[in-house]
Amino acid sequence: MGSSPAARGRNYQIKVSEGPGGYILEDVPHLSDYIHDLNTYPNPLRSNPAYSVVKQYFVDMDDTVPEKIIVHKDTPRGVHFRRAGPRQKVCFSSEEVSACIVTCGGLCPGLNTVIREIVHSLDYMYGVSKVLGIDGGYRGFYAKNTITLTPKVVNHIHKRGGTILGSSRGGHDTMKIVDSIQDRGINQVYIIGGDGTQKGAASIYEEIRRRGLKVVVAGIPKTIDNDIPVIDRSFGFDTAVEEAQRAINAAHVEAESADNGLGVVKLMGRYCGFIAMYATLASRDVDCCLIPESPFYLEGKGGLFEYVEKRLKENGHMVIVIAEGAGQELLKKETALGDEIDASGNKLLKDVGLWLSQRIKDHFSRKLKWPLTLKYIDPTYMIRAIPSNAADNVYCTLLAQSAVHGAMAGYTGFTSGLVHGRHTYIPFNRIIEKQNNVVITDRMFARLLSSTNQPSFLSAKQIAEIANDECEAPPSQLLDDSQDKPSDN
Amino acid sequence: MGSSPAARGRNYQIKVSEGPGGYILEDVPHLSDYIHDLNTYPNPLRSNPAYSVVKQYFVDMDDTVPEKIIVHKDTPRGVHFRRAGPRQKVCFSSEEVSACIVTCGGLCPGLNTVIREIVHSLDYMYGVSKVLGIDGGYRGFYAKNTITLTPKVVNHIHKRGGTILGSSRGGHDTMKIVDSIQDRGINQVYIIGGDGTQKGAASIYEEIRRRGLKVVVAGIPKTIDNDIPVIDRSFGFDTAVEEAQRAINAAHVEAESADNGLGVVKLMGRYCGFIAMYATLASRDVDCCLIPESPFYLEGKGGLFEYVEKRLKENGHMVIVIAEGAGQELLKKETALGDEIDASGNKLLKDVGLWLSQRIKDHFSRKLKWPLTLKYIDPTYMIRAIPSNAADNVYCTLLAQSAVHGAMAGYTGFTSGLVHGRHTYIPFNRIIEKQNNVVITDRMFARLLSSTNQPSFLSAKQIAEIANDECEAPPSQLLDDSQDKPSDN
Amino acid sequence: MGSSPAARGRNYQIKVSEGPGGYILEDVPHLSDYIHDLNTYPNPLRSNPAYSVVKQYFVDMDDTVPEKIIVHKDTPRGVHFRRAGPRQKVCFSSEEVSACIVTCGGLCPGLNTVIREIVHSLDYMYGVSKVLGIDGGYRGFYAKNTITLTPKVVNHIHKRGGTILGSSRGGHDTMKIVDSIQDRGINQVYIIGGDGTQKGAASIYEEIRRRGLKVVVAGIPKTIDNDIPVIDRSFGFDTAVEEAQRAINAAHVEAESADNGLGVVKLMGRYCGFIAMYATLASRDVDCCLIPESPFYLEGKGGLFEYVEKRLKENGHMVIVIAEGAGQELLKKETALGDEIDASGNKLLKDVGLWLSQRIKDHFSRKLKWPLTLKYIDPTYMIRAIPSNAADNVYCTLLAQSAVHGAMAGYTGFTSGLVHGRHTYIPFNRIIEKQNNVVITDRMFARLLSSTNQPSFLSAKQIAEIANDECEAPPSQLLDDSQDKPSDN
Amino acid sequence: MGSSPAARGRNYQIKVSEGPGGYILEDVPHLSDYIHDLNTYPNPLRSNPAYSVVKQYFVDMDDTVPEKIIVHKDTPRGVHFRRAGPRQKVCFSSEEVSACIVTCGGLCPGLNTVIREIVHSLDYMYGVSKVLGIDGGYRGFYAKNTITLTPKVVNHIHKRGGTILGSSRGGHDTMKIVDSIQDRGINQVYIIGGDGTQKGAASIYEEIRRRGLKVVVAGIPKTIDNDIPVIDRSFGFDTAVEEAQRAINAAHVEAESADNGLGVVKLMGRYCGFIAMYATLASRDVDCCLIPESPFYLEGKGGLFEYVEKRLKENGHMVIVIAEGAGQELLKKETALGDEIDASGNKLLKDVGLWLSQRIKDHFSRKLKWPLTLKYIDPTYMIRAIPSNAADNVYCTLLAQSAVHGAMAGYTGFTSGLVHGRHTYIPFNRIIEKQNNVVITDRMFARLLSSTNQPSFLSAKQIAEIANDECEAPPSQLLDDSQDKPSDN
Repeated sequence: MGSSPAARGRNYQIKVSEGPGGYILEDVPHLSDYIHDLNTYPNPLRSNPAYSVVKQYFVDMDDTVPEKIIVHKDTPRGVHFRRAGPRQKVCFSSEEVSACIVTCGGLCPGLNTVIREIVHSLDYMYGVSKVLGIDGGYRGFYAKNTITLTPKVVNHIHKRGGTILGSSRGGHDTMKIVDSIQDRGINQVYIIGGDGTQKGAASIYEEIRRRGLKVVVAGIPKTIDNDIPVIDRSFGFDTAVEEAQRAINAAHVEAESADNGLGVVKLMGRYCGFIAMYATLASRDVDCCLIPESPFYLEGKGGLFEYVEKRLKENGHMVIVIAEGAGQELLKKETALGDEIDASGNKLLKDVGLWLSQRIKDHFSRKLKWPLTLKYIDPTYMIRAIPSNAADNVYCTLLAQSAVHGAMAGYTGFTSGLVHGRHTYIPFNRIIEKQNNVVITDRMFARLLSSTNQPSFLSAKQIAEIANDECEAPPSQLLDDSQDKPSDN
Repeated sequence: MGSSPAARGRNYQIKVSEGPGGYILEDVPHLSDYIHDLNTYPNPLRSNPAYSVVKQYFVDMDDTVPEKIIVHKDTPRGVHFRRAGPRQKVCFSSEEVSACIVTCGGLCPGLNTVIREIVHSLDYMYGVSKVLGIDGGYRGFYAKNTITLTPKVVNHIHKRGGTILGSSRGGHDTMKIVDSIQDRGINQVYIIGGDGTQKGAASIYEEIRRRGLKVVVAGIPKTIDNDIPVIDRSFGFDTAVEEAQRAINAAHVEAESADNGLGVVKLMGRYCGFIAMYATLASRDVDCCLIPESPFYLEGKGGLFEYVEKRLKENGHMVIVIAEGAGQELLKKETALGDEIDASGNKLLKDVGLWLSQRIKDHFSRKLKWPLTLKYIDPTYMIRAIPSNAADNVYCTLLAQSAVHGAMAGYTGFTSGLVHGRHTYIPFNRIIEKQNNVVITDRMFARLLSSTNQPSFLSAKQIAEIANDECEAPPSQLLDDSQDKPSDN
Repeated sequence: MGSSPAARGRNYQIKVSEGPGGYILEDVPHLSDYIHDLNTYPNPLRSNPAYSVVKQYFVDMDDTVPEKIIVHKDTPRGVHFRRAGPRQKVCFSSEEVSACIVTCGGLCPGLNTVIREIVHSLDYMYGVSKVLGIDGGYRGFYAKNTITLTPKVVNHIHKRGGTILGSSRGGHDTMKIVDSIQDRGINQVYIIGGDGTQKGAASIYEEIRRRGLKVVVAGIPKTIDNDIPVIDRSFGFDTAVEEAQRAINAAHVEAESADNGLGVVKLMGRYCGFIAMYATLASRDVDCCLIPESPFYLEGKGGLFEYVEKRLKENGHMVIVIAEGAGQELLKKETALGDEIDASGNKLLKDVGLWLSQRIKDHFSRKLKWPLTLKYIDPTYMIRAIPSNAADNVYCTLLAQSAVHGAMAGYTGFTSGLVHGRHTYIPFNRIIEKQNNVVITDRMFARLLSSTNQPSFLSAKQIAEIANDECEAPPSQLLDDSQDKPSDN
Repeated sequence: MGSSPAARGRNYQIKVSEGPGGYILEDVPHLSDYIHDLNTYPNPLRSNPAYSVVKQYFVDMDDTVPEKIIVHKDTPRGVHFRRAGPRQKVCFSSEEVSACIVTCGGLCPGLNTVIREIVHSLDYMYGVSKVLGIDGGYRGFYAKNTITLTPKVVNHIHKRGGTILGSSRGGHDTMKIVDSIQDRGINQVYIIGGDGTQKGAASIYEEIRRRGLKVVVAGIPKTIDNDIPVIDRSFGFDTAVEEAQRAINAAHVEAESADNGLGVVKLMGRYCGFIAMYATLASRDVDCCLIPESPFYLEGKGGLFEYVEKRLKENGHMVIVIAEGAGQELLKKETALGDEIDASGNKLLKDVGLWLSQRIKDHFSRKLKWPLTLKYIDPTYMIRAIPSNAADNVYCTLLAQSAVHGAMAGYTGFTSGLVHGRHTYIPFNRIIEKQNNVVITDRMFARLLSSTNQPSFLSAKQIAEIANDECEAPPSQLLDDSQDKPSDN
């Protein structure tokens, strides 16, 4: 597996070691990889009453977490990650630490909780009092004043939505950022953001390593869409699914109260349909859920129009949930959309909800002469802006604590993430090399289809092809119900 | 391991098989274990568009789920359970099925969702239309009229709290219940309830087996406290933690607005402190969390009074969360409480919240002459009675679907449960033989302590003893962060 | 005042009587106006324990409610309406009554509560058991099956949004509706809807009177916008203002978290800005509130763009609330919109929120080269579809009870409405002859302006002209703080 | 009427003037009553764009608001109060003002909103920047540090429950408080609290007047129970009724899900049952509402036990709402409770909810041998601690603005209050001389009885006596539906 770093085109060492029975550890970098005379100190938590009495509170050096659950008696043990948590020894003294936190990209419930808990963990667990907030995303490193973060300043922020640090897309200039880090004497960098941001974090880590600085870079993955791979789910996702219920319920009420009432709700999900799928499964009021992973078509046999007509005839009303990234191919074909991208490099999507609503209305008015009452709801910003719920609060807290434990212990170039209910340190490359998607040959998608009774829009042949594509992964993974994870919320 | 069934004092066969690398399968009974000429039918889902195209939607006969995550490279593979899901073949024809559903014990968010989804799954997936609701718990089998359950009747019930079937404690008479099942021609019995109820379900299963009836008994574990072992978490737990925030927040506001303000919130948890612990971790407003698993004392050095004085001096206000079962030993000693039990066999607990509030008020008024403003909040019934949130809705749906798939496939004497994010069938005995508890030597408890900064109330010696008790489990389990699970919510 | 009916172009008698000190009673019709041998019966409530013991529970024949509050010592007593409530005698026996309920127009929180309370009041207070629901608005009279409404059927509906009867716009054919009423033997018609619907109700009443039928027509005014005159406020308005807070808060969070963040929220209000104004006053997060009654302009000195630039420079973020009917003149000028109308005769409005957002974005990107992050939120359907809050529940209950008391007492051609906190019967013509508007020379609007610090967009000369227009009303009304009313919510 | 001040035992001048037709103005004091060379200044609002253009924004010197609505054509015009609002001239220059704010008594939703809006109004409208917060109620005047209040400090506080100033009961020492006011150079005192607090404010005003100080005292009445007379309703009441729904709904769900399920909810209301009554009317789930104004008895014919038995037989479940002050006579008789009072002089009440629950359980278990499942819910602190809803936010804003306008204009010794939807200045004595109560001979109480179908617990003779007592008020008031007011929420 020595060739994989090169194969993956990264210039820093991917640390992989192997064990018996097919055991593989994909490890994260450590300051000691390139700083040879690194001091260590006893972990201050050893004198904390909560941690002092029982050794098991500290993570054993060898603890790892498997990426996949073994379901057959002879499945290989597979890839593991280093387990997160406090170590007996740390690489920074409390006084030495000068940390900074930056939030990038779109809003997501829980950002303020993560900020709060990094500050609190550094202070209460490790006695660190120097924490700066970078204002307004990456570009805040070189263009803005910073915000001094103390436990008092952040004490109530988890009850408010948004991010007190501000955020922005793009604005990433690795050299200028690392210069700024050096100038300010920062030695712990906490970066909260999506996959574009984590790519940026990887570059920052590489440049810091190239310069040989004693600076750790810790990422905390943020994506309301849940499109980051490897981890069980991203923070804010649970809150988003909960809040989406409100919009679906409104669409349902509007549809039920009208003659041939049709409610259309657009939910977040540029490339993946997790929010749409889980919101549909949670609500039980949805008749059709359209996601990017499962193509659909409008006209003809087995198409969406046919299904809408059928449901309205049977029931008098229906609700469609559509992820923002669904049907983009169809939309592009029909509307000659160019491939524009935004400041973060995300493709600019046409509003598929407006387009779909218009197409359905046209179909029914022009072709069928049916009176149709269609109500379109786009709750996106109302979902993004709420504070995190209890489950996400706990999750954000543990993510933040894990990141702090890892940084204090000298790990760097890692993302803090939950894998099968265990907190781990994952190398950046595993987070950014691909996206997490709904696997439409998985059970969770079957559950969706059978709960809505919607058509699959696919021929057996198409599904077979999709299944084949996914079969390049080992067979045990195909059987693996990886989509279960966020449902465990 | 052939001796274990006898050792466990059960008269039905515990089905255990072993594999290489320490692999153990603890299997559930099947009708074919005692009915030899059992017919099978193709699963009707095979003609359902959602399931028909891809074989992987159906569970492979050999799929299992491990009870423990392997964290070291040489850990044995350990105990596995049979994976839940639709099978290619079923043991009932659609017309043949006559199902019933009963709910027992206290209220829990999600009961109506489980009822709804059993009815919907039987109808939409398996074409079963005969479903009865038993009214008012176990005693409804012989004392009450039944309720006809159709998809229409249950269509909106998941948006209401409580259970439309009614519930009660106790009232279990195995013989009369099995007589009633026979008399009514019921052949699928779905039993939703806590560990007392599941014990009852085990007896019913055994008696049915003794009589050689073609009747499956499927349990769905219900405990708002999360005290059922093996499974990741129980349904309604997530909703309860969320709703508990409201009470904690009120206590915090009352405390902050008063001089020496002290808010005390009692939360559910007769024998285990999961709700109290997770609500504390989610809220960040709690200064002390008391749970049954971790004894505490009031007076003297390191006691609660000392900590309260300290926090009030530092901060002017504080919030204490106490699980209903915490401090019972202390309370019993002080109040000469007899060991009374209720109709379900649960110990009657004195209201520890009232007691603790009184003791603190006495301490401060008599001994310290401090003015103290103490507000006591008991939100129990306001938490129990709400509808399930989105995460619990999805979970209840999958639990119900799993139970129906298992029953249709002829499995019996099982409980439907989530293990490491995978749905499984667990033998009754594993669910009822012990209770799930917060392990105070686990990381999650350390996180709690370090987030509140409360004293541990334990000497190193005491903790060592507790740790030793728990060490009778294999070492890999001790390191295992089993408390992580509900946090993954 | 004998000439006013003709002047108003109505062919039924407007009943006006006068008293000393400038007292005027604008009365509602009564069956006895055109049916001369009308039987009367003792009110069944006289044997109801709640009403039997105290005579004051029944409304005195002479009780009236003034339309305007007298603020000066020599103000004339002015217009009064007949007070609502139970009368000692009724004109229908319980067995004789056959009632129907219809809901028309767009959704509004509280529709189901009104339906429920009409059914409950008829049953529990007057022993009436024959109540039909007309399905889908006016056109349901001749095109649809009816729904049997019993106390049990409607028992839980007030906890759901929408209307269980369905609703539609238009579809009004007076002759066919009255035919249907006659055919079905209905003698009490309860009509819930906005001003178009109340106009329809007036025609139905006139035709019924022309035919000499013993059928009462009672209106319950429904308008989420609060644009119905005379009454203190319309049901659902309070709930809508409450729910609008959620959208404004989201806009605020989005704006605060971005650099030059601008949140735009469009709220209901085709012709009047009450929801926008009260939501702004309640939220305290809004920097500018645009309503139909107060014209504005974009460019140049004193224009909106100038104000937006100023606020962003000062604060870094801002929130604009715009009523859907605001700026229509401007929009029409810029977009050459025709004067299209919908099925209810409402003008079709272009989406002013989208237009304004685009114009602001263009201004900042093209002219100023400022990066601007604008988020546009349209929560309309999410607001309309929620159940009514507690205040609206009480209000809906009393409106329904008043309507039932009036109908049983033989009053007809009236609308049930709250005037200065007292329930009254208002003649249809007073409800439909003009619309309620925010009076921009009133104190409430000054409070709005001073709370947001937004520009008035008006020259002193323009305001003087507006004031003059309004001065055609008697001077005491100008001083009258009529906009206070909904604030009393 | 010159004798009334003496008759009422107050040593400051009650200012009453009369007009034609029975018009009476009960005016509030003004600094010029005892300071003869008082400077005046043009109101700074005259240069505020919002107020500058239209003269009507300013309140006319003669504007008044009637206490009672005239319902008959010959009713006398009756008592009026001075209308609140900005005056053309003020008695303080902006630089001169040094204001303070104090909050006293129990929590109530909206306290923070009132604080915020006083600070904002003083700053944005009148250019006043010196505002102090007194910490912890009246005793904070002489025992505590103050808090500097700026628009920035209070900017987000309306979204949190409680009071940022802290509160306490009692601690009132007029001399020391006035000394402290003098020492600190304060010349505007804003006092937010219930009737005990307003009595204190009256004493402070009198002492200030005795000393001849240029200091205005403005009260803002606070009582979650709505027991302050004259005003339409108190702030926080609407929010409390809304939030009480949650507890009632939980009681309903618990009751419905059990066999002979009985939910008991205790709500606030020491001396009056407004919250209980409106929460009952709003919820529609309540079978019996017990309030202090309407005595009840348990045993025998027409008693509560009989009604409970009847409802459980009919329905299987029921919900009782009881105000905390209901049944105190009964409770005192049974439990030999002394007449203890708390620090604010309020009688200490035994917990009537616990007592009633126990008595019902005893009755059913001992006498009837019925199994009864009773769940008791006390949501008091969860209701008090929430932030104010939208309606209360608007109301608090206008109360605060009125108080500031009045203080700037030199009025003193007044309470800011809403009367028939108009903001007024009410002399302290009218607020504190008696309490507002539910009038059980009023229509609102009849609506309550008829909506729950509960017994009245009164003989005709008793009601007649009650009616007679109330008849000492002028007859027009008896007919006056004064209880309507809070329903207009």
